[in-house]
Amino acid sequence: MSRIDGRTPEQLRPITIERGWSKHAEGSVLVSFGDTKVLCTASVTEGVPRWRKGSGEGWVTAEYAMLPRATHTRGDRESVKGRIGGRTHEISRLVGRSLRAVIDYKALGENTVVLDCDVLQADGGTRTAAITGSYVALADAISWAQGKKLIKAGRRPLTGSVSAVSVGIVGGVPLLDLCYEEDVKADTDMNVVCTGDGRFVEVQGTAEAEPFARAELDALLDLAVAGCARLADAQRAALGTVVER
Amino acid sequence: MSRIDGRTPEQLRPITIERGWSKHAEGSVLVSFGDTKVLCTASVTEGVPRWRKGSGEGWVTAEYAMLPRATHTRGDRESVKGRIGGRTHEISRLVGRSLRAVIDYKALGENTVVLDCDVLQADGGTRTAAITGSYVALADAISWAQGKKLIKAGRRPLTGSVSAVSVGIVGGVPLLDLCYEEDVKADTDMNVVCTGDGRFVEVQGTAEAEPFARAELDALLDLAVAGCARLADAQRAALGTVVER
Amino acid sequence: MSRIDGRTPEQLRPITIERGWSKHAEGSVLVSFGDTKVLCTASVTEGVPRWRKGSGEGWVTAEYAMLPRATHTRGDRESVKGRIGGRTHEISRLVGRSLRAVIDYKALGENTVVLDCDVLQADGGTRTAAITGSYVALADAISWAQGKKLIKAGRRPLTGSVSAVSVGIVGGVPLLDLCYEEDVKADTDMNVVCTGDGRFVEVQGTAEAEPFARAELDALLDLAVAGCARLADAQRAALGTVVER
Amino acid sequence: MSRIDGRTPEQLRPITIERGWSKHAEGSVLVSFGDTKVLCTASVTEGVPRWRKGSGEGWVTAEYAMLPRATHTRGDRESVKGRIGGRTHEISRLVGRSLRAVIDYKALGENTVVLDCDVLQADGGTRTAAITGSYVALADAISWAQGKKLIKAGRRPLTGSVSAVSVGIVGGVPLLDLCYEEDVKADTDMNVVCTGDGRFVEVQGTAEAEPFARAELDALLDLAVAGCARLADAQRAALGTVVER
Amino acid sequence: MSRIDGRTPEQLRPITIERGWSKHAEGSVLVSFGDTKVLCTASVTEGVPRWRKGSGEGWVTAEYAMLPRATHTRGDRESVKGRIGGRTHEISRLVGRSLRAVIDYKALGENTVVLDCDVLQADGGTRTAAITGSYVALADAISWAQGKKLIKAGRRPLTGSVSAVSVGIVGGVPLLDLCYEEDVKADTDMNVVCTGDGRFVEVQGTAEAEPFARAELDALLDLAVAGCARLADAQRAALGTVVER
Amino acid sequence: MSRIDGRTPEQLRPITIERGWSKHAEGSVLVSFGDTKVLCTASVTEGVPRWRKGSGEGWVTAEYAMLPRATHTRGDRESVKGRIGGRTHEISRLVGRSLRAVIDYKALGENTVVLDCDVLQADGGTRTAAITGSYVALADAISWAQGKKLIKAGRRPLTGSVSAVSVGIVGGVPLLDLCYEEDVKADTDMNVVCTGDGRFVEVQGTAEAEPFARAELDALLDLAVAGCARLADAQRAALGTVVER
Repeated sequence: MSRIDGRTPEQLRPITIERGWSKHAEGSVLVSFGDTKVLCTASVTEGVPRWRKGSGEGWVTAEYAMLPRATHTRGDRESVKGRIGGRTHEISRLVGRSLRAVIDYKALGENTVVLDCDVLQADGGTRTAAITGSYVALADAISWAQGKKLIKAGRRPLTGSVSAVSVGIVGGVPLLDLCYEEDVKADTDMNVVCTGDGRFVEVQGTAEAEPFARAELDALLDLAVAGCARLADAQRAALGTVVER
Repeated sequence: MSRIDGRTPEQLRPITIERGWSKHAEGSVLVSFGDTKVLCTASVTEGVPRWRKGSGEGWVTAEYAMLPRATHTRGDRESVKGRIGGRTHEISRLVGRSLRAVIDYKALGENTVVLDCDVLQADGGTRTAAITGSYVALADAISWAQGKKLIKAGRRPLTGSVSAVSVGIVGGVPLLDLCYEEDVKADTDMNVVCTGDGRFVEVQGTAEAEPFARAELDALLDLAVAGCARLADAQRAALGTVVER
Repeated sequence: MSRIDGRTPEQLRPITIERGWSKHAEGSVLVSFGDTKVLCTASVTEGVPRWRKGSGEGWVTAEYAMLPRATHTRGDRESVKGRIGGRTHEISRLVGRSLRAVIDYKALGENTVVLDCDVLQADGGTRTAAITGSYVALADAISWAQGKKLIKAGRRPLTGSVSAVSVGIVGGVPLLDLCYEEDVKADTDMNVVCTGDGRFVEVQGTAEAEPFARAELDALLDLAVAGCARLADAQRAALGTVVER
Repeated sequence: MSRIDGRTPEQLRPITIERGWSKHAEGSVLVSFGDTKVLCTASVTEGVPRWRKGSGEGWVTAEYAMLPRATHTRGDRESVKGRIGGRTHEISRLVGRSLRAVIDYKALGENTVVLDCDVLQADGGTRTAAITGSYVALADAISWAQGKKLIKAGRRPLTGSVSAVSVGIVGGVPLLDLCYEEDVKADTDMNVVCTGDGRFVEVQGTAEAEPFARAELDALLDLAVAGCARLADAQRAALGTVVER
Repeated sequence: MSRIDGRTPEQLRPITIERGWSKHAEGSVLVSFGDTKVLCTASVTEGVPRWRKGSGEGWVTAEYAMLPRATHTRGDRESVKGRIGGRTHEISRLVGRSLRAVIDYKALGENTVVLDCDVLQADGGTRTAAITGSYVALADAISWAQGKKLIKAGRRPLTGSVSAVSVGIVGGVPLLDLCYEEDVKADTDMNVVCTGDGRFVEVQGTAEAEPFARAELDALLDLAVAGCARLADAQRAALGTVVER
Repeated sequence: MSRIDGRTPEQLRPITIERGWSKHAEGSVLVSFGDTKVLCTASVTEGVPRWRKGSGEGWVTAEYAMLPRATHTRGDRESVKGRIGGRTHEISRLVGRSLRAVIDYKALGENTVVLDCDVLQADGGTRTAAITGSYVALADAISWAQGKKLIKAGRRPLTGSVSAVSVGIVGGVPLLDLCYEEDVKADTDMNVVCTGDGRFVEVQGTAEAEPFARAELDALLDLAVAGCARLADAQRAALGTVVER
């Protein structure tokens, strides 16, 4: 059985991770999962939010947003509406938690990194692309901070890597990395965030139509773990290249 | 090994489901999971939101909130701050999705049910108590609507029941239905929403400290499924009683 | 002539004042005036707002709100609308002023007490129930603060007690403590706040239909003063019991 | 005993009511109570708010605001803060209620009049000046609407006149029409709204320092009734003049 | 060819500048350009915004707003809408920039002047009247601050004067100081802010209908420069009079 | 004399106009003025805003925004702050007006085009790049609408082309198309919007430091007109290529 775009069920879309996309940010990545394109920038500032001052520990947070015409039909800007929507809030929190899972706050010292994930074009999987790309931007930002001596010599704020992928059951078949058209038809939709060593940071599964059985859950988790491993490879490959900034 | 409050790892806190708590609402439940108390009211109105008009289908949605002093220290009111926070948004959406998983929109007809889940006292597991209590309030609201002939004779808008429970790993041990003190210490925290026949509606697991392995995930899912089954029994028992309104 | 619920014109509804309702708050009361139920919690924090620092004086303030389905039909949440409505603002200010009328700021010292009055069920007189219940919650919070030595030994921050009741003219007859159905039909509606020694803290009378004459105003004030005296008795009785917290 | 500005206790400040102040508004008045100056405009539109459509009845509402430097020190604009404060809300509602007390909605027909009361300079009594001036602006707006045949021939939407004054106890003496300096020192502060025939529309008394006794309340009411009578005379005199628009 | 109101193309409307309009503000002017009336108040406070502290330099800023019924039909209040509109923002920024063009921050010292420009009646040219009137209010506020020794002896914070006027092409003819009716018909609309010595502070030209040619632009600039010179004369004349405050 | 980046005073930065950047939008352009990069998308919808319904005329509007890390230091998101800032408002309005200057509303018919200009990277001149790029996106969107028969055959909604450029005086020398570093040092800063036939749509000049003389204004206008002509060439060249969508 072949998918809309010719992939096999356990195949990722073409993944590209373009480092150094932005002139200003300490780390920046344009990540693509097929036609989904997310610009991830990492901004480093000395100091931490007030509630963390004097702790000797750093902080990492994230904000996710979509350009109004990233989607099939134009959405109103949240800045114009004057409110962040529930979905935006939820994904921003998810991205932040995912990255914090691989951060050693003590090693980071009292520095803050803000990840901005702006979806330039959406075709399913924007939150998983955002997490996967942000990790690379974060790694670059931390290298920059090490170069600037904001982080003490010998300290390694990153305890591992993190990536994410969506999985879902479409027409009874578990599929990896759903594009928008598949996502709309999925009975069950799951986003899985894994560390580079294959453990789980976040598992979020939702029955879109029918509740799902344990066996289906297990099949989806298997697919996701394999997909995240391949994304971790792509991250490693991207970070292997030296980028001038 | 015994827990803070003397429970065994696979034991729920005392669960109470008090129907007909409110004089005005079409369905209302004061649900307690130990010291966590949530007032769930279900409000029925004829008609549906604009985007659904003419579809012949109904709608179910939910709003979750905490009273300012439901917690150890007072929190600012979101109405005063002028914004709904990310956590509130996230839980409101979760409760709504969970209830919609057992609704047949066609059978409901063009009626809307809004579930309001207001936490009067918090001691961990407020979202799972909210889902579990809301289901009972929703069932009562639907009976009321059937009595008022808003729903066509013979139609059964509820396709099953739904309940939810939290599970987590504390000190290496998987525990069911965490109270606040346990929740704070958990390495991994998961909320699981199940239908009465034991299938999954929602699985949300988060590594609070260390990423978790597949075996841990499996153990937590086992605990949660068993817990939800007992909550489904409690819902059935509560609905067995006739409540005057 | 007998009223909708069988009361005489000068009779209060059944009043209950349940102390220690909440596990977390320093003072908490579930007060009922008939079917009107308001949860009043008092939260104590050391320190005062910025504009009062260094004065040696404390501060007491209040916030009033209604659960969305406290009323006959569901109201939108003010947190979702992103604004506090005029009525909410007005009542919050009234409750705060009423309680401050019996506070000796010097004796309280630089401590702040916030009263939260959340209407769980509304049937007329929610603001007067909120004031009456809040006084008891405030008294308990002050005892707690004395126990914790936040207040200097021998200091008595409460200079008296305060309670409130509504009165109105319905079908030409002055009535005490209107329920919702009476309130809707009232030509004149007045809320009166009195100290335990029978003096006035606040008098707010509004002609809902016809302007009212001085004689009517006098009759309403007489009724209100008598009603407040009975509420003061109920407060005293409630505070006579020792509550474990 | 003489007051700060040389008045006797029962004397009003100089009152001026300047009609036709604005070129655009259907009714407009610049009212002064001493140094307090409020611009009151009445805007007539055909039609009524949605909830009143088809009733055959009109609507009257009011909005009150202060220019930022109407006061001794500059206040932040509520438009910039993005929120209406509690005091503004409260006074807007009071002005609207007061004017509606002399309106026959049926006679007005499905027309809406909005009163805008903008305080250009504040020196105590801004709300009472706003009510007193708005009545005259409203009367002019209704004449205009009658001229334009928006109101059916022979219909008289105004059932009477309405004015308002503040009273208070300063240094033990009941005083009429407090200026700012007196207001700040008042133990008790009351705003009274009366119809031209001397009945009460609104009575709002607040103990600023000490609770007040019934005798004090009675003395204040006497003063206020006499003051409102003189304001009603001033309104009548102002409306006696024909104003070109 | 004569204009709607009988003026010649290069003629200003009657200009009045009434100083000392407000009792409280350090500088205040009621300025009229024909039927356009703007109340400009200047509020002086010691100290500067946080980002400027310790610089030894002062700050001048402005806020512009319209009363709801300043215009032909009533506009909603921005405070009620909870947002400042784009036009309000734009004009506030323009007024602030224009005044800062004649301020020597060093000479002002760490003091802040806020100009509030509230349009009481609008008939075209409200922003240019606001700038012209604000300059006079600012000059008075600075004199006041010098009198209070907030500004060091011998320092002259004003480096010149500033005024503004609108010009436009209506029916092919360049006109000075458009009233509302002309403004609506203009093909091109320009606002020009000049210093007293005839140089430009701001030039904002917009093609309302047809794009405009360089020759038209030049003609408009000529008119505007001549108009600003006459406004500078009017400012000088107004400031020549001593005003008691 | 040579500039920071080696350009002559009358030289533009390298200009690129990449059409068809987005998969979803009816027109989309990634425009670069040197390191300034703006993504311009044009979204077509049938129908017009309510106030224009039934007129037979279309509407064109624009929204401008910056990604948080488009700049040297990260700016807070306006969606998170809950308000659009003054600068954003101002530029959005400018872009909309500029494009409407070349639109024949009748020919467009009752269709709406929304231009979204999102600055991905900022290095001066973001508003002029936004206008220049948006015109090309708009042209593509109109072609698309013609292909879909939303626009009647033979109708040409575009009456010309429009482009924009910044000019300024830096160190006494008039310069074309300022980069950020030059912009910061400019004494006078002007943005000029021209049609393809060299007429003015908008002229906005601001004295940043010293007021400017007429001769300087003339020199800047000359530079800007020449610059816009070269941008019009670049737009024509870009639109010469057929883009598949």
